[in-house]
Parts: sequence; C-alpha cells; structure tokens
Amino acid sequence: MAARTRRPYAPRMAVEDRREQLLDAALDVIARDGWQALTMEALAREVDVTRPVVYSAFRDLGAVLAALFARQEERARTVVEQSLPTKEDLADPDAALVRAMGRFVDAVAQDPRGWRLVLLPPDGTPSAIRHVVEQNRQQYADRITELVSWGLEQRGGPAGLDVELAARSILAIIEEAGRLLLVDPERYSAARLEAFVGTIMRALARE
Amino acid sequence: MAARTRRPYAPRMAVEDRREQLLDAALDVIARDGWQALTMEALAREVDVTRPVVYSAFRDLGAVLAALFARQEERARTVVEQSLPTKEDLADPDAALVRAMGRFVDAVAQDPRGWRLVLLPPDGTPSAIRHVVEQNRQQYADRITELVSWGLEQRGGPAGLDVELAARSILAIIEEAGRLLLVDPERYSAARLEAFVGTIMRALARE
Repeated sequence: MAARTRRPYAPRMAVEDRREQLLDAALDVIARDGWQALTMEALAREVDVTRPVVYSAFRDLGAVLAALFARQEERARTVVEQSLPTKEDLADPDAALVRAMGRFVDAVAQDPRGWRLVLLPPDGTPSAIRHVVEQNRQQYADRITELVSWGLEQRGGPAGLDVELAARSILAIIEEAGRLLLVDPERYSAARLEAFVGTIMRALARE
Repeated sequence: MAARTRRPYAPRMAVEDRREQLLDAALDVIARDGWQALTMEALAREVDVTRPVVYSAFRDLGAVLAALFARQEERARTVVEQSLPTKEDLADPDAALVRAMGRFVDAVAQDPRGWRLVLLPPDGTPSAIRHVVEQNRQQYADRITELVSWGLEQRGGPAGLDVELAARSILAIIEEAGRLLLVDPERYSAARLEAFVGTIMRALARE
C-alpha cells in the first residue's frame, strides 16, 4: 500500500550515480535560474526525488558545491593536459594547434552544462568560482604560449610576432568557438571550427 | 556663519557638468562594489556632496540609470561607426583593420570605466544591460564581417576562409585586447596591440 504513495520516478540508484545525477542537475539549475536558485529543495525537484534522497547523497549544499567544483576542475585540467603537444605532433605544429582546438571543442560538446559555467558564467557566480576559472584560464594561456613558441621554432612564422599576444588571441578564439558551440551547436559544429583554424594556420607565413 | 558648516569639496557646478561627474561616479561605484551598491546615497558619498545635490541633478536612481545607459550606448555606437572603413581605407584593407583595432583600443583607453562595464561586467549586471551589450556586440560583429568580406575582395586572402568565423575571431581578439588594456595598460599598450594586429595581417597569405 505504502508503495502507491511513492513518487513514480525515483528508482534506486548507486550512490555514485546519484551524486553524478545531482551534480548534473545542479548545473542545469544554475544555468537556467542562476546561482541563487541552487538549494537542496531545487535539486530534489530537478531530478524528481524527495529531499531525503538528496540528503542521502550530499550532507548539505556546501557538500554539493565542493563536489561540483572538484569534478569540474578535474575535467578542465584533463582538457588542458590533453591539449599539450605529444611526440606525434613534433613534425607538424599547425596540426598540433588544430588538434588542441579540436580537443577543447570536443570537451565542450561532451559537457556543455559544465562549460557553460565557465564560458557563459550565469549571473551571481560566486567570486570563488570566478577565481578558479581565472586560474585555469591563466594555465591554459601558459600552455598555449609554450605551444606558440615551439611552433615558431619548428615551422617558422610571422617575423617579429608578439608570442604572448598571439597566445592570448588564440585563447580568445578558442573560447569564442566554445561559446558559439554552446549557443548554436548545429551552426557552429566542431568540424567547422577545426577547419577554420586549419585554414588560418595554412595561410600564416613561415618566414 | 552658515558657510562654515558646508562640506568643503562641493563647489557649485553647472548641472550638465554635475550630471557627467555623477555618471562617472556611478561607473566607479559599480566597478568597485557591484551593481547592488549603486544608490543615491552612494553617489553622494562618492563625489563628496550632500544627497540634495545628487537629487538636484537626477530625480531618482532610475533617472541615473537611464542617463548612464544613454551615454554609454551613444559612446559605443560612436566607436562602431568610427571603425567603419573610410574612402582612404579603400587602398589598403590591412591598414583598415589595424585602424579599426586602434580606434577601439583608444576608445577603451579614453573611457576605461565605461568599457569595464562591457568587457569585464561586474557581478549582478542587470539583464537589460547584458541585452544591450549583446546587441551592440552583434552590430560590431556584422560590421567586421563586412570589413572581412571587403578585405578579401581587395587584397585576396586565405583560400576558403570562413568569413563569419574570421569576423567572430577578430571580435574576440579585439575584446581580449580591450580587457588586457583595462587590466594592465602599461604592459598592453595601444601601440603594442596595434603592432600585433599589423604583424598578423602582413603574415596572412593573399591567394
């Protein structure tokens, strides 16, 4: 009898799966309604479970936020690491940059909720988050600076190029590409964005 | 005798000058303390006058915001219009783009308070403002698309270039340049930013 009063869509789930589900739901709530809308109650509504189910996965909202930061930071770090040139890239710096672009765009396509937080920060984003995003961005800029310096040595490049501004510009283009993909993935496909970077690299002098 | 109780730094000012002063002060308050800190009281404190002085220039906070939007929108429109290629630019599309970049960077240097609102939007920026900024950005993107199409016709350019993505990339670079100038004007001078764009343009193939 008691079973009839249960909500219909709260199947039992392993706690790790439940946590992942709730973290995804948190990103949805934030993207749609802003940071201030994120409460344990809102999370329960979002995945259509009772509040005790949410509390069985996370002690409180602070625990949700800590887990969310840890997960998203780990994902961002993975993207940065995977964008580094590998041994196979040594022969062709242009291909290395196109590949770095491709990996970033793929990461955005695979986790649009998470990257929306970074590339299109919703109103009321806590300054702690802005700070972490800014740190990761700096790390990404440093990696790209290395890649540009190395590419100039390998392939030659525009005479007198300002390496730091080149790296900043590439970062700005990559971020804009990520935003375009988030806003209109059909129009700005990963393939289109990669092809564009390839065209530019081929067109740059190798003095 | 009454004169001795007056605040020392509230010289009489023509009402137009007072309004300009208060609008600049509003930008300072927003940049430093966020949108929610902007009150008639805060404005009075910021320019060190009594509240009635503020109320003699603006009826209420709504009037301050309306005047602020109108002024900043007018300034943004002027920058967009001045960045359009002129007759003298017809001979040299590369120089036209470098000049467009230079004009934008100059505008940022002349009104850092105003451009901070656009390029580094403080937390709690009202959605009405975000909307206006997004509209202006779209307008700027359209102008740059025209400039790129025209430049490709005039000078030749990378074969198969995606004109829309090229324009979006240029916009992203220009905005990043503006942010760098706001954050560290000594390191990222207008001259350095313009020289960088010139180097890139010279290095791009003219197929």
